[in-house]
Amino acid sequence: MKLGWIGVGVMGRHMAARLLRAGHELSVHSRTASRCAPLLAEGATLAASPAEAAEGADAVFTMVGRPEEVEAVILGPRGALDALPPGSLLVDCSTAPPALAEAIASRAAARGVLALDAPVSGGDVGAAAGTLSIMCGGSDEAMRRAAPLLRLLGSRVAHLGGAGAGQHTKMCNQVLACSNMVGVSEALLYAHAAGLDAHEVIRAIGAGAAGSWAVNNLGPRVVERDFAPGFMIEHMTKDLGIALSEAHRMGLKLPGLALAHKLYESLLRHGHGKDGTQALILALEDTVKYT
Amino acid sequence: MKLGWIGVGVMGRHMAARLLRAGHELSVHSRTASRCAPLLAEGATLAASPAEAAEGADAVFTMVGRPEEVEAVILGPRGALDALPPGSLLVDCSTAPPALAEAIASRAAARGVLALDAPVSGGDVGAAAGTLSIMCGGSDEAMRRAAPLLRLLGSRVAHLGGAGAGQHTKMCNQVLACSNMVGVSEALLYAHAAGLDAHEVIRAIGAGAAGSWAVNNLGPRVVERDFAPGFMIEHMTKDLGIALSEAHRMGLKLPGLALAHKLYESLLRHGHGKDGTQALILALEDTVKYT
Repeated sequence: MKLGWIGVGVMGRHMAARLLRAGHELSVHSRTASRCAPLLAEGATLAASPAEAAEGADAVFTMVGRPEEVEAVILGPRGALDALPPGSLLVDCSTAPPALAEAIASRAAARGVLALDAPVSGGDVGAAAGTLSIMCGGSDEAMRRAAPLLRLLGSRVAHLGGAGAGQHTKMCNQVLACSNMVGVSEALLYAHAAGLDAHEVIRAIGAGAAGSWAVNNLGPRVVERDFAPGFMIEHMTKDLGIALSEAHRMGLKLPGLALAHKLYESLLRHGHGKDGTQALILALEDTVKYT
Repeated sequence: MKLGWIGVGVMGRHMAARLLRAGHELSVHSRTASRCAPLLAEGATLAASPAEAAEGADAVFTMVGRPEEVEAVILGPRGALDALPPGSLLVDCSTAPPALAEAIASRAAARGVLALDAPVSGGDVGAAAGTLSIMCGGSDEAMRRAAPLLRLLGSRVAHLGGAGAGQHTKMCNQVLACSNMVGVSEALLYAHAAGLDAHEVIRAIGAGAAGSWAVNNLGPRVVERDFAPGFMIEHMTKDLGIALSEAHRMGLKLPGLALAHKLYESLLRHGHGKDGTQALILALEDTVKYT
């Protein structure tokens, strides 16, 4: 198929490469054109704008950072949507507000384009290996058309409902993940203060009823003070901000989410945006500085 | 061996039965003598007091509820410690303050008795199946002597340090577990409010980076409004109270723990002490009532 790809950051570059290697024709666009070089070397062509990546494509994928960028590359001037042929497919893999996904789907429908919100989880490792978890919202027809392509990117591809349902599910994922990380940080702070060997504590409790992916995978990195990012604090803070504002809109009070968001925001303000989410422990170690 | 067992609640009864079935001689005591009937039917003998259960025993196990009970059955009048022969072993499987474990170990040492704090995790199911996780604190000699018996009760038996280290590790377990449960509750509240199918959301996110034992095992029960206890709120509230007071003593601020403790205390005050910990969602659904 003839595909367009917009956004080649830490994850997008791997995802685009997987589509290319599966034999699809790929036109790729990035705000920073030099980032496209590795994909061009594998046979992709460079697009000067999102619109150019979309022209004549069977499907266009977007994987960018902030909601404003999602809006700009899809709905803005020289954006992808206006250039997509009727009957084609638009898949947004970015994490963005559910209301934006609904707006995109509605604008797409008016042009006869099928839209899917399809945010992912699994980090750069999952993106490279094609083992992402992909949470989709959109029509059955959009899902049916996108599924063979999404299965090149992820090992778990779920259809959760209409437009926005993928983004809402991603919010559930982040709400869960942030409180898990609060628990990991506090348990390891306690272990350290009590003079325990934190690695042994993780081994003793990680496989039981207190276990989580976070304690078993990020816990040891916290103990080693390894804050290299699997997933960056600046992205987590953005995601939790969306989740908080959605929760507020729906009349929910989620104090665990509010706590984690406050701690991550404080870390962001103090220059830890590019650290991994496991650096949360820094904010709990020094509650005077990080408030 | 000649063993004593004190405390036959939801978990203790199963643990005692496993020692009995392994061929050990068992003298059993409970505040409520009638609760011993099933063990007597399997060949145990009834002890009228903790002291009677301890007389002439090679080892005595205690598995009771509140710290005051731990203190009473071990250190109180007609308690186990004064009746234990020098050279014997005292294993407390209750969850209790680390300082109490240290006091017990010190009193035991003065009598030539080896003491181990050995709190467990895994619920009644793990107790019956012998698959508990057992977190031990005490001397190497106490650990060496207790290990063959503990392996009849648990599939993970870890020695974390000197007296109190088992209790401290159990506190880490509960600190982790309570924030995991906050995350599960808030993610499922969000999913419901957003109109998603919560079972599908759990399947979509439970196997990835947001996954936990709690979301995969207790999440579906929350969705079904099944609040039957695997582990009761009244016990969790007690444990979190100990953890909070230890954290305070060590100069730690653990806001996630404080949040979960406040929510569980409120549920306890409103009559939910015998519900399972997954009933936490009730406190987040009605933040006006549960404050």
